[in-house]
Amino acid sequence: MAPGSEDDMNALRVLVADKQAAVDRQSNEVRALKAAKADEVAVNKAVNLLKDLKLELQSISKELVSKATGGETSVLSRETFRKTLSNTLERRLFYIPSFKIYGGVAGLYDYGPPGCAIKANVLAIWRQHFVLEENMLEVDCPCVTPEMVLKASGHVEKFTDLMVKDEKTGACYRADHLLKDFVKESLEKDPLMPPDKKEELKHVLAMLDEFTAEQLGAKLKKYGIKSPETKNSLSDPYPFNLMFSTSIGPTGLLQGYLRPETAQGIFVNFRDLYYYNGSKLPFAAAQIGQAFRNEMKPRQGLLRVREFTLAEIEHFVNPDDKSHPKFSTVANLEFYLYPREEQMTLKQPVKTQIGHAVAKGIVNNETLGYFIARTYLFLARLGIDKERLRFRQHLQNEMAHYAADCWDAEIECSYGWIECVGLADRSAYDLKAHTDMSKTDLVAHETFSEPKDVAQLLVVPNKKELGMFFKKSAKMVQEALEVMEEVEALKMKAELESEGMASLHLCTTGQRVTITREMVSISKEIETLHGRTFTPSVIEPSFGVGRIIYCLFEHCFYTRSSNAGDDQLNVFRFPASVAPIKCTVFPLVQNVKLEVTAKEISSALTREGVANKIDITGTSIGKRYARTDEIGVPFAITVDFDEKTVTVRERDTKAQIRVPVEEVAKVVNDVADARRTWIEVQSHYPGVMSKDSNQ
Amino acid sequence: MAPGSEDDMNALRVLVADKQAAVDRQSNEVRALKAAKADEVAVNKAVNLLKDLKLELQSISKELVSKATGGETSVLSRETFRKTLSNTLERRLFYIPSFKIYGGVAGLYDYGPPGCAIKANVLAIWRQHFVLEENMLEVDCPCVTPEMVLKASGHVEKFTDLMVKDEKTGACYRADHLLKDFVKESLEKDPLMPPDKKEELKHVLAMLDEFTAEQLGAKLKKYGIKSPETKNSLSDPYPFNLMFSTSIGPTGLLQGYLRPETAQGIFVNFRDLYYYNGSKLPFAAAQIGQAFRNEMKPRQGLLRVREFTLAEIEHFVNPDDKSHPKFSTVANLEFYLYPREEQMTLKQPVKTQIGHAVAKGIVNNETLGYFIARTYLFLARLGIDKERLRFRQHLQNEMAHYAADCWDAEIECSYGWIECVGLADRSAYDLKAHTDMSKTDLVAHETFSEPKDVAQLLVVPNKKELGMFFKKSAKMVQEALEVMEEVEALKMKAELESEGMASLHLCTTGQRVTITREMVSISKEIETLHGRTFTPSVIEPSFGVGRIIYCLFEHCFYTRSSNAGDDQLNVFRFPASVAPIKCTVFPLVQNVKLEVTAKEISSALTREGVANKIDITGTSIGKRYARTDEIGVPFAITVDFDEKTVTVRERDTKAQIRVPVEEVAKVVNDVADARRTWIEVQSHYPGVMSKDSNQ
Repeated sequence: MAPGSEDDMNALRVLVADKQAAVDRQSNEVRALKAAKADEVAVNKAVNLLKDLKLELQSISKELVSKATGGETSVLSRETFRKTLSNTLERRLFYIPSFKIYGGVAGLYDYGPPGCAIKANVLAIWRQHFVLEENMLEVDCPCVTPEMVLKASGHVEKFTDLMVKDEKTGACYRADHLLKDFVKESLEKDPLMPPDKKEELKHVLAMLDEFTAEQLGAKLKKYGIKSPETKNSLSDPYPFNLMFSTSIGPTGLLQGYLRPETAQGIFVNFRDLYYYNGSKLPFAAAQIGQAFRNEMKPRQGLLRVREFTLAEIEHFVNPDDKSHPKFSTVANLEFYLYPREEQMTLKQPVKTQIGHAVAKGIVNNETLGYFIARTYLFLARLGIDKERLRFRQHLQNEMAHYAADCWDAEIECSYGWIECVGLADRSAYDLKAHTDMSKTDLVAHETFSEPKDVAQLLVVPNKKELGMFFKKSAKMVQEALEVMEEVEALKMKAELESEGMASLHLCTTGQRVTITREMVSISKEIETLHGRTFTPSVIEPSFGVGRIIYCLFEHCFYTRSSNAGDDQLNVFRFPASVAPIKCTVFPLVQNVKLEVTAKEISSALTREGVANKIDITGTSIGKRYARTDEIGVPFAITVDFDEKTVTVRERDTKAQIRVPVEEVAKVVNDVADARRTWIEVQSHYPGVMSKDSNQ
Repeated sequence: MAPGSEDDMNALRVLVADKQAAVDRQSNEVRALKAAKADEVAVNKAVNLLKDLKLELQSISKELVSKATGGETSVLSRETFRKTLSNTLERRLFYIPSFKIYGGVAGLYDYGPPGCAIKANVLAIWRQHFVLEENMLEVDCPCVTPEMVLKASGHVEKFTDLMVKDEKTGACYRADHLLKDFVKESLEKDPLMPPDKKEELKHVLAMLDEFTAEQLGAKLKKYGIKSPETKNSLSDPYPFNLMFSTSIGPTGLLQGYLRPETAQGIFVNFRDLYYYNGSKLPFAAAQIGQAFRNEMKPRQGLLRVREFTLAEIEHFVNPDDKSHPKFSTVANLEFYLYPREEQMTLKQPVKTQIGHAVAKGIVNNETLGYFIARTYLFLARLGIDKERLRFRQHLQNEMAHYAADCWDAEIECSYGWIECVGLADRSAYDLKAHTDMSKTDLVAHETFSEPKDVAQLLVVPNKKELGMFFKKSAKMVQEALEVMEEVEALKMKAELESEGMASLHLCTTGQRVTITREMVSISKEIETLHGRTFTPSVIEPSFGVGRIIYCLFEHCFYTRSSNAGDDQLNVFRFPASVAPIKCTVFPLVQNVKLEVTAKEISSALTREGVANKIDITGTSIGKRYARTDEIGVPFAITVDFDEKTVTVRERDTKAQIRVPVEEVAKVVNDVADARRTWIEVQSHYPGVMSKDSNQ
């Protein structure tokens, strides 16, 4: 392949120089902050910015090298790459802005024919890779969800962004975004502002995610921040719930929401699923389905949308035993891990064996590690570039308080590193929340392999004695005795033994009463337990299917010159299992006889279950190849005047072989289904020297 | 197959005798009423009851015969059948009332593990049978839909039921249901009412579906109908829209709904899809997805729900040519058709060749006929009983005014004949509606194979002459001339030729003006047209996936005695392609060596892509077979102490063969994927005489 044009490379060199200058500036800034002993948060922020700049520099440099050496990427920059890609995606109907003829709705997209086929293929692979392989219990629950369920999960209260409204036009904004924009702009505009003012603004930036509605409102007032377009006054910030709200039934009394995730449908079914699984742990349930988030201002194209497909797994496990029987099958896998520690000390992610990471306690447990590794295998199988995939651990303050450990599979694309899969050990939080709200015990039972002796403190109030002394209040005193914590009871036992009496606090009335030795017996007894009932922990891998597919588009897309050199051609290098159509069939020229053969081959492919398309237009064969390369069709069969054989052409190598007509459907099916490799097939049939410049 | 056990047959014989006695008693009653000249309603009631009893007797007798001759159906009656079935379905988690631990929500159900697997299989078969086979363009659009789209489709205005509210409690009722209940009850209660009153009530019943809100309200008032439970007053009837309503974005200004069908997503994309298809007709687009109807009072279990999966096809076709190139491949298929004519003359549906029905004009056109036939094949492939499947044509007044023809695939189940697939020729209605609302032309272009000469009327006003005479009004007159209909223009031409002048009506002002020969030239000219632009017709097969699956449950379910005769065992005879799990693997007894082999076989099956489950519980092998029969697993592999071979047992025949360990995964995969039949495989491997009574 020819190296990039001088123009392209010059443009890249300019970009590299610019970015290098930015890196230098930021390095100075970091040094200055450190010298000034600025607060830790401000330093960290500056360092993070520096890190990002360095990464960008690295990536552009890499591109320049690749271009200079004739690599296939003809991407000038992230932006031109993204533009070329999205043009192709929209033109070939991979996706379509929904309700386009009505002007569309922000954050809603349709998958057109090739996108829809890819989505179906990705979901089929997911089902095969996870549900079938692990014998998961798949369920399918409705999108419409009554309020109670989402109150229990915390979504009604907490699934919110803070919003302000333009007091005249009613336009809505995210309060934190407005404050952030203001602060950033101020810092850039006025580099000479007094250091204390600068410090204050930087502190605001660092604290942005932590502010309450009141604090945010106070900051907006303090800086006189107005509505960005109209400069009108803004309302106080108030929480805007990101769930689409609706009403179930005709009375309007049953409040419902569109589910923000599919997980809750699994949690509320825990009891039935546990029973279905023979009342045994561990087991996993899975669900694929639509989820909804009423984003205030959707952006980043397909990455932040209002309706999307999730594929979620809830793996229920004994909290005391999170080992995984199949962990050894993945322990040697090595891929990029980015643990908390490395993020805090500003190191880069490194390739790590997952077995090592679990052994060192970097990843909390085997089951979580197993799913991280399986997720890695899944994404690689789809065609995600392993070099642009990392598993990043949540920082301590990013994690919910109940979570034991959280890792995100992040995929690098032109928008940066995108969270595509969340893998969390959520401990017993969800099942406990639904147990509390529904009053249905979502628990498991464990029979010990051998009975366990457990020391148990026994507090037995003497009702008669209490009744005689406390009369009407006797019951209250009795209850206060019964609910004493172990420490408290032991203290009382000691006092009763030494002093003959002890003081007891009645929390219901606030009074203190005196307890004598006759009123209560406190003793330690050994109890033999044969098992226990507990709330299982849940380990949740949650896949954002749309985001994965978008990143896949980016990783599989490349352009190459037509052999004549007069055109840039777009290609998607989807693996055959993902490709929307596996094979096209072309008669070389418009001719009845060739068409008949082509149709027969197409029917044979359909019978084999191979998604195929026949193209009988008279367009040149090179153009027809280019057209199918652009939607990532891996194989093309061309029927020419040889009656016995046809050619099969592979998309990325453009290599061609001649295969007998009656074998071709089977051969393509085998290669498309990965029963045979292209290389194998290629060595088995005679090759063809390409005559057409685009073949 | 062995005939039913003596016990079963004795039980049936007792039932038959009981029912026969009931029939005799009721016959006497009818005779007595008639002799006493009792009023018509009372007699009719008695006669109807007699009829029902006779039907029940007939059905039980049939069963007894079938049992005596070795048929497997042990169904006692529709109700007991339905009860046994739904017990099994709920117990084995085919479905679960959604949010059960919170008391559930009427009309919302989850698919549990086996139900979910069956749904995924049915959808995969649908995709293969329709999308892949016909090269359809599949799309995937959001559930959240802006109001505009559903205004255009007519759903905002017309997708309603008329509702009344209890004025004190707010409880809601369908107005027509209340009126109907009242009228029926009155007719039954008061058989001696005056004939004119009776006529009036019967007229109300007949007109029920035609009443406007005002008319319904007037009737409710007239008859003093109150809230059924509280006897409180009722509100006036008002339309209740069956769409779930929501609001898109934070402002609350963009009204949205959850889509009531998936079709609209396809219609609004027509232009892009037509272009994607190379601007050629015909083509079909398809969509699988959730749809929502906020039913006032959901009932009939899984048949009328508030959220459901639809699989819809929109086949776009030139209205002048609705032939189908593949019609000949299905023309000879014969199945039950129930044309309008037969329904009106109260005849029964008869098996008809679809080719014949289209030729006779019973089915409007080849394309509609083709899809009816393909739907028949699809349902049969799933395991729907062909004898309990019919295609019923809509009566003239059932059809929308724009529809050219409509047929419903109806499947008989314990609830009666259920509409599961709608097949409609909707003409150009939908595309025209969206063209009007969006101002985007959703049209196709046709190039004539040879140019057509068309006579065209040319009306050319003489602007100068009009200006001189009409001054300021000249433009108005000119426009009125230009928009004349052909008849009108020809009349004017004749008048101008004979009289020299003619009168013209200006619709904008209501005036009449006089036109002279000089003011306009009217002539007929021949124009040569090379093509035309038109709105395509759409033929829409729409599949209610949940309803099909429920009917499939009913058609595949049967019970049989355990061979010991002490138990009734439930079986689902799902085809392997539909079955939730294709194969179970059992070690004969709990033994490490057998378990190892079983696990190896299970892994091999998983590698082959066969959904399988291993059961290492120590339960008797007969019980384990019964457990998997109950979720319709077609094959079971049992590992015993023979190291080289294992047994494979087929669910319905209970026949067993011995297959070498290393071949078994492939054999099961081949049979499950229908590459080989069980009969073929059976003849290839040695059979086993069953030793266990339940095997």
